[in-house]
Amino acid sequence: MALADLEAGHRNDSGIEVALGVLKQLFGDRLQTNQSLREQHSHTTTYIPSQLPDAVVFPHKTEEVAEIVRICAQHKVPVVPFGTGTSLEGGVNAPAGGISVDLMHMNDIISVNSDDLDVTLQPGVTREELNIHLRDQGLFFPIDPGANASLGGMAATRASGTNAVRYGTMRDNVINVTAVMPDGKIIKTGNRARKSSAGYDLTRLLVGSEGTLGIITELTLKLYGIPENISAGICQFETVEAACQTTILAMQAGIPMARIELLDSLMTKITNEYNDLSYDEKPTLMLEFHGTDNGVAEQTQMFNEIAGDFGGSDIQWVSTVEDRNRLWKARHDAYPAMLAHRPGCQGIATDACVPISRLAECLRETIADVERLDLVAPIIGHVGDGNFHVSPLVDMSDSEEVARAETMIERLNLRTIAMEGTCTGEHGIGQGKRRFLKLEHGTGVDVMAAIKMAIDPDNIMNPGKVVSLSD
Amino acid sequence: MALADLEAGHRNDSGIEVALGVLKQLFGDRLQTNQSLREQHSHTTTYIPSQLPDAVVFPHKTEEVAEIVRICAQHKVPVVPFGTGTSLEGGVNAPAGGISVDLMHMNDIISVNSDDLDVTLQPGVTREELNIHLRDQGLFFPIDPGANASLGGMAATRASGTNAVRYGTMRDNVINVTAVMPDGKIIKTGNRARKSSAGYDLTRLLVGSEGTLGIITELTLKLYGIPENISAGICQFETVEAACQTTILAMQAGIPMARIELLDSLMTKITNEYNDLSYDEKPTLMLEFHGTDNGVAEQTQMFNEIAGDFGGSDIQWVSTVEDRNRLWKARHDAYPAMLAHRPGCQGIATDACVPISRLAECLRETIADVERLDLVAPIIGHVGDGNFHVSPLVDMSDSEEVARAETMIERLNLRTIAMEGTCTGEHGIGQGKRRFLKLEHGTGVDVMAAIKMAIDPDNIMNPGKVVSLSD
Repeated sequence: MALADLEAGHRNDSGIEVALGVLKQLFGDRLQTNQSLREQHSHTTTYIPSQLPDAVVFPHKTEEVAEIVRICAQHKVPVVPFGTGTSLEGGVNAPAGGISVDLMHMNDIISVNSDDLDVTLQPGVTREELNIHLRDQGLFFPIDPGANASLGGMAATRASGTNAVRYGTMRDNVINVTAVMPDGKIIKTGNRARKSSAGYDLTRLLVGSEGTLGIITELTLKLYGIPENISAGICQFETVEAACQTTILAMQAGIPMARIELLDSLMTKITNEYNDLSYDEKPTLMLEFHGTDNGVAEQTQMFNEIAGDFGGSDIQWVSTVEDRNRLWKARHDAYPAMLAHRPGCQGIATDACVPISRLAECLRETIADVERLDLVAPIIGHVGDGNFHVSPLVDMSDSEEVARAETMIERLNLRTIAMEGTCTGEHGIGQGKRRFLKLEHGTGVDVMAAIKMAIDPDNIMNPGKVVSLSD
Repeated sequence: MALADLEAGHRNDSGIEVALGVLKQLFGDRLQTNQSLREQHSHTTTYIPSQLPDAVVFPHKTEEVAEIVRICAQHKVPVVPFGTGTSLEGGVNAPAGGISVDLMHMNDIISVNSDDLDVTLQPGVTREELNIHLRDQGLFFPIDPGANASLGGMAATRASGTNAVRYGTMRDNVINVTAVMPDGKIIKTGNRARKSSAGYDLTRLLVGSEGTLGIITELTLKLYGIPENISAGICQFETVEAACQTTILAMQAGIPMARIELLDSLMTKITNEYNDLSYDEKPTLMLEFHGTDNGVAEQTQMFNEIAGDFGGSDIQWVSTVEDRNRLWKARHDAYPAMLAHRPGCQGIATDACVPISRLAECLRETIADVERLDLVAPIIGHVGDGNFHVSPLVDMSDSEEVARAETMIERLNLRTIAMEGTCTGEHGIGQGKRRFLKLEHGTGVDVMAAIKMAIDPDNIMNPGKVVSLSD
């Protein structure tokens, strides 16, 4: 295995030149070809080397995206949708060049329907912008992948994060999308009804398709009332296993945890260092409970009883909203905190997700492997979903260390798949995990390829990601 | 509009003859061609006339289904999957003849993973069989469309029903499926992880595809712990509008209703008649609350306050499990109860689902239309989802009455779509609603057709349903 086993991608230079000329006429200064902007649009929080697009274009509305796609389709030029650039598996790279479509100027919140608990917005709105907008109405959008990602990007990658254990992922929270398809046609995948049996589920087909079937240009999301009581805190354990068993039993007991995040001792230490905190350097669960006052009291009592059975500390509550925000900011800053812990090294995100009954076993074997291979690899995870990230911090100039990290990652993905889990709980396939997609889905990948071929026969939509027709 | 505007279907007589011969050799007595069995396999709880298959075959396992499909694919013979035959829109009709694949002998519960709260089973297991099997383990599967349908059929049609307001629909509760595709290949759409970002969501593509893309031969479903407290009862109102406003506010207040079912005065009367009950003949909400003892107490207090503001009665609780079962049986027997109310007439199910903010308005306009058209049409609905069924009881020999019913249904579907809703919240498209699918989805139907064409180019899988390539 090579960590960055990239497709070269066949460039259609003449097509790109013609399309660029046409687009320049239409978009003027909103089409840019300077090196730094192109670099920025292929750079993501990833170990995968950049592959630059030929230009970046900034549309303002669905019809402009359709116009861009029609021009690119006519000249068989790749189209790579771009949001905040926080993808982890090379999702915004342009292996065959082409046009990066930056959707961040499309950032209108079109309508909040508080009576129906939904919102319709453009894809460039970020989750933090949305929640600031909603706060006065007592509403919030729970999905939180850590990064302040764009909601279009989150839908395209089927993102989830800390709150998914209670509120589901983008799969569960996107009501409909408007999308520009590879032929430039505009479709709307549904209406605002909460359920429908009308035909194939095009919403769920586009959610998680990583821009390979179409570009999401508008979406309607579920909203939730801000709970009467939100309580957060941490609970510490002597071993990862004990934290893990507590999580498993809490989930099995049906406690509606809003957040339950594991940090191993190393990650707790790294979090202390980066955020000037002073938690014991032990395996830690960061917790949040949502409900009525009585409901949260019941939930925390049940949780404390379970944690106590596994030697967990009493919950150390954070009392103010500011302290709670500081706690979750510390959690969200895991990636820069890791990089600061071992300067000059690359953090390589992994994304195992297994049935919760296998979580302790999967973590135990993975930790043993990390130790055996002498890697520095903190662990952090959305353990209520059975999802964890072990992230080796690798000196990429040390080929021997790189090889050991590759071994660990390879074994982790195989272990996860063997335990009836997935190689990616939330990061997506992008370029980095295409080989594991095949291992995980077998003949299912042929069906995915047939769908890709039917919808995008010229393979212009984000080529080289997820399934590619050259496979 | 004609109520039963069926495609004739081009029969491939020579192919059918050859396939029948081959299948007879392989399946012996498990392939039947007698008239009564073929009639039974095209008869559903619907107004749509039967179109008989040429034979019915009873496979025992996935590999046998694959064998059947391969033979039918080779000779371009239609394959129509069959469960309990409770579809409402002609889903099991065979407009071009072919083979009905009865999956009810595939009824093994393969494994209950209580630690992961999931179950893997064959498609012929019914929801009642599953819940009887689970009861001793303190677990249940909530999705409940009324009929004791097969779980494979429920997945194929994206069924929901009374509990969807709390637990979601089959879309939300199917973790993975194993399916035989139109070329006879077997795919498994996922693993047992609770979330995944690995590629296109083939699970959600097959859920709700009504057998037009493949046959589900195994599936893994989410399970839930039986709540500490389940409390059910009814609350009665002076007007449908008041019941509806109570529902809207209860949902907006975030009360986690487990069931909230509306019956208008006529439906309450019909329910009394059929079940020997004596509720006031007023608009009625049948309610169920799930939670801890304290949680249910909180929920019911909140509900009572809202209902009181709209002149609702105090909740009349049903105290024993037997009484609770009797209440929900009365709800589930709505269809035979309606038919008994107007003997000799046909009940025509409709299935409007709108954003909840439009529910009162949609019901008001629909009721006015029913009155204006002088129809007998009781209303029953999963109103927490914005979903309701107004079912004209029509003397099909009275062409003038049939025409009035057609007018009402046509207007209802157009009204629903205009209110950003769907023409089918849970029944599916089948044959009966293909025209409305186009009105609702516009250019999206072209994408559905492209997918159908890519996966089933010879249109052998349940042809004439949802999208057909002859459209």
